[in-house]
Amino acid sequence: MKLGRLNHIGVATPSIADSVAYYREVMGATSITEAFDLPEQGVKVCFVDTPGHDGTAGTQVELIEPLGPDSTLAGFLAKNPLGGQHHVCFEVPDIEAARAHFEGLGKRILGPTRIGAHGTPIFFLHPRDMMGQLTEIMETPKGAH
Amino acid sequence: MKLGRLNHIGVATPSIADSVAYYREVMGATSITEAFDLPEQGVKVCFVDTPGHDGTAGTQVELIEPLGPDSTLAGFLAKNPLGGQHHVCFEVPDIEAARAHFEGLGKRILGPTRIGAHGTPIFFLHPRDMMGQLTEIMETPKGAH
Repeated sequence: MKLGRLNHIGVATPSIADSVAYYREVMGATSITEAFDLPEQGVKVCFVDTPGHDGTAGTQVELIEPLGPDSTLAGFLAKNPLGGQHHVCFEVPDIEAARAHFEGLGKRILGPTRIGAHGTPIFFLHPRDMMGQLTEIMETPKGAH
Repeated sequence: MKLGRLNHIGVATPSIADSVAYYREVMGATSITEAFDLPEQGVKVCFVDTPGHDGTAGTQVELIEPLGPDSTLAGFLAKNPLGGQHHVCFEVPDIEAARAHFEGLGKRILGPTRIGAHGTPIFFLHPRDMMGQLTEIMETPKGAH
């Protein structure tokens, strides 16, 4: 496997509305997507666009808010009430090949491959097997490059 | 202020050597800089290059290891022995204008503006004022765009 693009960093927040205001007013973001629910993962999400080099799209900040007290994200926020960095997400060209790669290395994969916030297949890897980082692997959206 | 490029994400590690092996062997990184000491910040650092869109350079992963038990990073690792996400770093065109912007918003800046790992001026903002994220602001290296 070859290291792919850092698609986004996942940032937990107790309030997407507050985070959107923060990214606009404090950090100067000008492009933020509408929030939507990902019920399968128990979260509401939206994306803050950041600029890359030479006019390309940069790594996004994915804001994630728990949909309810049963969300796994609620536990993270209990420990980090202000929110904070939650996961990293790298792109791969072929999700099944990537899954086989990590399985072959004995890395624990958290659940089945499913459709993520960008509409392409994703899976998560256990932070204890990934040097402390909850790591999402996503198939690059077609036509993105 | 306008949101700039996500230059890097800072990832704490108890061992840069182990992290470099992990990024090469598990994540498939092919370009990692030599590690060097930043004694002013009490850390040893190196950078994992990730690809951006269209052949551009993407957001880097900055691996940071404490130089000794007195490093502020040692406290982070006491709580997160495997390592983990430590800070985010956004670029700005003018460090002094950015400092004035955040000061004007009442954000706590951690110490003076100093020279960071890329050789340009940087400062850090208190995570409690930045929605839980330790945030580094760095002046874009000249000639980088």
